Amino acid sequence: MNEVELIDLILDRLGPAGRAAKLKIGPGDDAAVVEWETEQELVVSTDVCLDGVHVPTNCPGDLVGYRSVAMSVSDIVAMGAVPRYLTIALTIEHADVDWLTAFADGVRDGCAEADSTVIGGNLAKGVKQITITAMGSVPMGRAIKRNTGQPKDDIWVTGKLGATPLALQAMAAWIPRGLSELKQLTSTDVIARYLLPPIRTSFVEFLRHYASACTDITDGLAFELDRLVSGAPNGYRIETEEIPLWFSAELDDVLANDDSYEMLFTSSAENREAVQHYAKKSNIPLSRIGTVLSTLDREFVPFRELRSPVSGFSHF
Amino acid sequence: MNEVELIDLILDRLGPAGRAAKLKIGPGDDAAVVEWETEQELVVSTDVCLDGVHVPTNCPGDLVGYRSVAMSVSDIVAMGAVPRYLTIALTIEHADVDWLTAFADGVRDGCAEADSTVIGGNLAKGVKQITITAMGSVPMGRAIKRNTGQPKDDIWVTGKLGATPLALQAMAAWIPRGLSELKQLTSTDVIARYLLPPIRTSFVEFLRHYASACTDITDGLAFELDRLVSGAPNGYRIETEEIPLWFSAELDDVLANDDSYEMLFTSSAENREAVQHYAKKSNIPLSRIGTVLSTLDREFVPFRELRSPVSGFSHF
Repeated sequence: MNEVELIDLILDRLGPAGRAAKLKIGPGDDAAVVEWETEQELVVSTDVCLDGVHVPTNCPGDLVGYRSVAMSVSDIVAMGAVPRYLTIALTIEHADVDWLTAFADGVRDGCAEADSTVIGGNLAKGVKQITITAMGSVPMGRAIKRNTGQPKDDIWVTGKLGATPLALQAMAAWIPRGLSELKQLTSTDVIARYLLPPIRTSFVEFLRHYASACTDITDGLAFELDRLVSGAPNGYRIETEEIPLWFSAELDDVLANDDSYEMLFTSSAENREAVQHYAKKSNIPLSRIGTVLSTLDREFVPFRELRSPVSGFSHF
Repeated sequence: MNEVELIDLILDRLGPAGRAAKLKIGPGDDAAVVEWETEQELVVSTDVCLDGVHVPTNCPGDLVGYRSVAMSVSDIVAMGAVPRYLTIALTIEHADVDWLTAFADGVRDGCAEADSTVIGGNLAKGVKQITITAMGSVPMGRAIKRNTGQPKDDIWVTGKLGATPLALQAMAAWIPRGLSELKQLTSTDVIARYLLPPIRTSFVEFLRHYASACTDITDGLAFELDRLVSGAPNGYRIETEEIPLWFSAELDDVLANDDSYEMLFTSSAENREAVQHYAKKSNIPLSRIGTVLSTLDREFVPFRELRSPVSGFSHF
């Protein structure tokens, strides 16, 4: 198949994930055209999903498709924005029709979960790599920054942290399974949890109401905590025993190197009951792990020395 | 330098290309937030610039930066839209500070030319590759599709076609030069013309008034002509002697494999005088190369057999 035929195949597999009421001109022209909602700001993020880094080499296409969508959409949700549209640039070594078909299926499933539409893309020959630009919408002035945590705010986190190192270990002897099977297992199977991060679009409305700052966790909890308070000379106190660990995950790993794509946010202590109520009635587990301090202190209680300097993951 | 420091360096070099009045939250948060203009549709395109394919291996960073911006913006202009914002995902083998600095400078210059702002990006270690998502705006319902040429419409093209094969030949013995020097030479030097495609933002208003269909030329003229008339059972007649060739460029190359990023558009014959007038008063050369036919015929006059099938460039 040549490039045009492969693109047609992908668009065909995307099905509903390639259509939207407000999509005026879709794939197949020089650019896509969408009608923008009035009074909504445009929220944009670009992420690269690297073979062998963000997904294991030889990972089945459907898992790569789903995971790359989830990774991208996570940034939009963390802004308190609703994901709307994606563009996907894919480079791949050769025209592997089976892999591409599976990839499109995974993107379609991720888009269904994220209520998003693929409005454009690019397919070229090269080292396997997926670059997704996600676009979302948020009412004017309502976007949630990540460094605006206020002194005395509670610090909360969704889900459980620390599955990645366990998953990477487990995958050494892994027999790959399909997306539909793995999707059933994300709360118990460590590989499923790692490869298929949560897509928390249902959490956006809550965040807009209650979060004073929010970020998704991709660079280790300690680094992300620093970001939460970096807009002012603030610090934090963390009750380390309250950090929700994925089964046998180690706290040191969570602090230094977590990429669980869970939401880390601050909220006024006045909201505590409302947040707890939401945690009970929704299916999104929430843990209160600490407090923003008005001093520069970074306290982990009981005392714990950070194993490595807080710097986040660096590709270089 | 680690990733965060490199990103800071790039943002610093971008200077004004990283700032815009409507940019509410810029680089440094989970996502960028921009205020969208009322009554304007959002136009989006994603392009990958591959090392060794779209730019020569070891091409200086400033030329790569400028060229990748120009390539991306071209799709937005071809829709009759004004380029506004870009995200840039860059993978690079190692933290080459000099190259990255030059790259940022080239992006800055391209953005200045395109009146666009970089609102986000991604930097990671990998095979050198640049993925740009360009976002533009167009008044509601005014975007120009590429397959809506009407029978009897004139077919026009901007600039001169066919520099690429000559440039690739010339570059075998090329001593790389800087962006500012090459920018002076784009109308005479074949390498300058190839590496620095025109950024035709000043042409958008004209296109909106006069074009019934438009596309940029990236896949050979014959393939692009097919696209112009593919929305209906139409064809075209081309006066081959009217095709504006870059100096010693060969028509066969232009038909089969041109990526000059010039605009190819149709316009009602009634507009002919106005178009000619515009061509005279602007500094954008326009050539009328043929007519849309109401039949399926593809005529090249004087008769010329296409050397290769009309299929466009395929990466696979």
